[in-house]
Amino acid sequence: MRSLIDIHNFSVEELDSLIAVAKDIMESPDKYAEMCKGRKLATLFFEPSTRTRLSFEAAMLELGGSVIGFSEASSSSAAKGESVADTAKIITSYADIMVMRHPREGAPLVASQNAGIPVINAGDGGHAHPTQTLADLLTISVEQGRLSNMTVGFCGDLKYGRTVHSLIAALARYKGIRLVLISPPELKIPSYVKYEIIDKYGMEYREVTSLEEALPLLDVLYMTRIQRERFADPNEYERLKDCYVLTEDKMTLLKTTGSVLHPLPRVNEISVKVDKDPRAAYFRQALYGKYMRMALILKLLDEAKDKNDTRRIRADAGLGLVCNNPSCITRCEQELENLFTVTDAEAGIARCVFCEAKQYFKKTI
Amino acid sequence: MRSLIDIHNFSVEELDSLIAVAKDIMESPDKYAEMCKGRKLATLFFEPSTRTRLSFEAAMLELGGSVIGFSEASSSSAAKGESVADTAKIITSYADIMVMRHPREGAPLVASQNAGIPVINAGDGGHAHPTQTLADLLTISVEQGRLSNMTVGFCGDLKYGRTVHSLIAALARYKGIRLVLISPPELKIPSYVKYEIIDKYGMEYREVTSLEEALPLLDVLYMTRIQRERFADPNEYERLKDCYVLTEDKMTLLKTTGSVLHPLPRVNEISVKVDKDPRAAYFRQALYGKYMRMALILKLLDEAKDKNDTRRIRADAGLGLVCNNPSCITRCEQELENLFTVTDAEAGIARCVFCEAKQYFKKTI
Amino acid sequence: MRSLIDIHNFSVEELDSLIAVAKDIMESPDKYAEMCKGRKLATLFFEPSTRTRLSFEAAMLELGGSVIGFSEASSSSAAKGESVADTAKIITSYADIMVMRHPREGAPLVASQNAGIPVINAGDGGHAHPTQTLADLLTISVEQGRLSNMTVGFCGDLKYGRTVHSLIAALARYKGIRLVLISPPELKIPSYVKYEIIDKYGMEYREVTSLEEALPLLDVLYMTRIQRERFADPNEYERLKDCYVLTEDKMTLLKTTGSVLHPLPRVNEISVKVDKDPRAAYFRQALYGKYMRMALILKLLDEAKDKNDTRRIRADAGLGLVCNNPSCITRCEQELENLFTVTDAEAGIARCVFCEAKQYFKKTI
Repeated sequence: MRSLIDIHNFSVEELDSLIAVAKDIMESPDKYAEMCKGRKLATLFFEPSTRTRLSFEAAMLELGGSVIGFSEASSSSAAKGESVADTAKIITSYADIMVMRHPREGAPLVASQNAGIPVINAGDGGHAHPTQTLADLLTISVEQGRLSNMTVGFCGDLKYGRTVHSLIAALARYKGIRLVLISPPELKIPSYVKYEIIDKYGMEYREVTSLEEALPLLDVLYMTRIQRERFADPNEYERLKDCYVLTEDKMTLLKTTGSVLHPLPRVNEISVKVDKDPRAAYFRQALYGKYMRMALILKLLDEAKDKNDTRRIRADAGLGLVCNNPSCITRCEQELENLFTVTDAEAGIARCVFCEAKQYFKKTI
Repeated sequence: MRSLIDIHNFSVEELDSLIAVAKDIMESPDKYAEMCKGRKLATLFFEPSTRTRLSFEAAMLELGGSVIGFSEASSSSAAKGESVADTAKIITSYADIMVMRHPREGAPLVASQNAGIPVINAGDGGHAHPTQTLADLLTISVEQGRLSNMTVGFCGDLKYGRTVHSLIAALARYKGIRLVLISPPELKIPSYVKYEIIDKYGMEYREVTSLEEALPLLDVLYMTRIQRERFADPNEYERLKDCYVLTEDKMTLLKTTGSVLHPLPRVNEISVKVDKDPRAAYFRQALYGKYMRMALILKLLDEAKDKNDTRRIRADAGLGLVCNNPSCITRCEQELENLFTVTDAEAGIARCVFCEAKQYFKKTI
Repeated sequence: MRSLIDIHNFSVEELDSLIAVAKDIMESPDKYAEMCKGRKLATLFFEPSTRTRLSFEAAMLELGGSVIGFSEASSSSAAKGESVADTAKIITSYADIMVMRHPREGAPLVASQNAGIPVINAGDGGHAHPTQTLADLLTISVEQGRLSNMTVGFCGDLKYGRTVHSLIAALARYKGIRLVLISPPELKIPSYVKYEIIDKYGMEYREVTSLEEALPLLDVLYMTRIQRERFADPNEYERLKDCYVLTEDKMTLLKTTGSVLHPLPRVNEISVKVDKDPRAAYFRQALYGKYMRMALILKLLDEAKDKNDTRRIRADAGLGLVCNNPSCITRCEQELENLFTVTDAEAGIARCVFCEAKQYFKKTI
């Protein structure tokens, strides 16, 4: 059974094919209006995320299917202590495909290992949110006409921004992407993203602190929010915050062919006055997200017909490690074995299969 | 884009036409069963209101459409600080029409100014709840066979009762309506309703404190609940409350052709024993509300086809006022300009465009 | 109007007919895919129960119908003090059939007396949950090929286990059922179940404390959870709890043709390792539950066509009793008369019609 837990589950060819289908849906929605007739999507939101949930529900309805589910954990069996694995097994009886949002990192992976239907990760703690990345890719593709040979700026909180790391990882597999990483020193991109993605794929990049300095260079500007809580010194936050707010004035520095993206919700990091600018793509991005989710649902339901697909978790045995990430699903799920994969044998680094937290192991040889 | 924010958005002709369509749906529901096939209604309930929400959902389903949405704010992006304007823009990507209930007065108006789809106000704080008024009008029309030349009594809390003020405003535009306003002195109709509606339209009215005295005069009795919290002196509440409870005994005083309405939920202001009386129309009123909402959805979706309709908010510039109603949406919505219209130039009175709160301005000439 | 409030509302013939329809749906789902087209199910969950709710929703969707409703009381009018009777009357305007879960015992019965559409009890406090019993019956019938002449073991909390009492009551009406009641002394089956069901129907039974001793005797093992809170002495709980956990080891004692059932959610009373055993029927039980609910919805909608069916509550007048069960709906519902039926005239025992709580009355003769 094929699922989407992490953007890496799909090859570049698969991403391109999803983008092509999404564009075809945008052009000829009527062709798709009955494709999921009689099929059911289960939306299992163990924590609320209205925009993501409604996007999936709209996607399934526009394919002619229907929706069941819950929008927060208090309405769910989790409150009675049911494991994610059991929930996944039971939902298999009620739906044809499920979407899961969960505060525990790795929960959708556990679900996919137990469900008899495809599972889509709609956000698991700070770990992954691959359908946001799919929406981002389609947005760039439509707005810029290509996914290669361009300069993409990421602005704001690059340290904790899950969507930023994930989009960089997806873009790494396209050609000629140059990155401009715009943030205060406190919120610079983590070194593992640099080493394991940017350096590994040989992406060209520069780090700057000034949004105004970066703007003239960019084809795409990906904005994110800077949260006060991230700063040890509140004065430092006050000093910096306005530098990272996109205003009409700063927009004059962006190319006329540029595009501004934002995963939303926005608070005040983009002035409402920018909304009218044709380069402001962030509300269209929400629309593209719906079409990309439609393409994804179609792909996974189609592949689910192949009952012989028995992909399993790849893990290295015998490491004897226990995940030390307090948000990992292994910390609370009943009878769930710890699994790790060695990512750097030299340095003795392994990563938890569920949450991807890094751990050192004692090399035996 | 045409929306329904306040009952005044519709002319008497439009109200009559909605009533006619609702009656036709009641007679020939099958004719309408597929009219909204492939269309989606978004129900955005920032505060819970089960009856209103289910009425809209049933309405859309009986038109062959489908529904997405949320039933309380904790499940919504508002918890993450998203503005009403941004929510409206995003929902435009997911649905064809939206219904909004919001604790902030003016929020649905802000939504309608930002959405690319029609917006229906399903209650914004103490301000307006126009679809209740539509249900009330259809109820009177069906039960009494007309909407003019009759005596309508309003009983209970006439001071705070939003549905009372709104129905009086709607009836004011029909001919020969006589009002009997039945309440304790503490809960009399506010003077602005008297001056700006009753007097302005020259409605005949009388104010009484005794329900029993009023009953023989009435064609329609509109009951509302009296809440203990409204009384400074709890003894006064205890002394009064039974006078305003409708019992089987009191029903003997009402004409045999009379009708009893209530916006529901009822607590104990109408005895359960009255339910069996054929003149008790309050449960049928809920049913009529569904048909009226079906007619409304059809009308707004139909008008939405006309993309050239660019009605905007009418406001008087240059007053330099800031709304002082603490529940007004202008108090919390990001970058929302204060707008006022002058309602009495002589007296220097203007009203906030969003919540209709009154404010005095300094006359410049 | 026919409703399902308690499993006793159906005769054995009706149960057998429901089982036959459910099996036919399992074999030929396409035949049923449009049977409820244009019909609406209202799911009124005054307390959350995700599995039950989603099972009903999936059932209605697979019949081609649609669903409205709420998943917890905070979203409902109950928060505004509306009575169950009024809610039932209003929902009659919005849906064709309703499912109710309510913390108050007897609430669905009150609803069924006021609604103009069929009501299904999806759990009312500790009182009844008949559709779980329907699921259990279909599971036994499919997995064992019959519903008579077999030994059924019930393990765990037999004192408070609502599903246990209800399934015993249903099985009592089939032939040749032998019971093995497996529990710690603290959680033995209540004496009223022994007297009023087991003895009354002359069922053969034995009570044991050891699961291992019982296992070789059983065709069906019905597992339930033992909750720590049920024990006065926590040490006693610690000493006992492992005895009632079903492990791979203990499974070797069960017949190869045996079946293990569990109403779910499971916490740890069945090891996850047992899931792979083909005799583990508890996840299939969830699937059977959906088919049984489909059969039930069809039956009740079909019988609802007969408007002349005017079954009323059977009660004995003149007992002058007031129900003393603090969870009974009579304790809070507005203007609801207490009703009792005499169940043992000799001993002067009556039972509340709503919650079935036992009460002694003074014999007049």
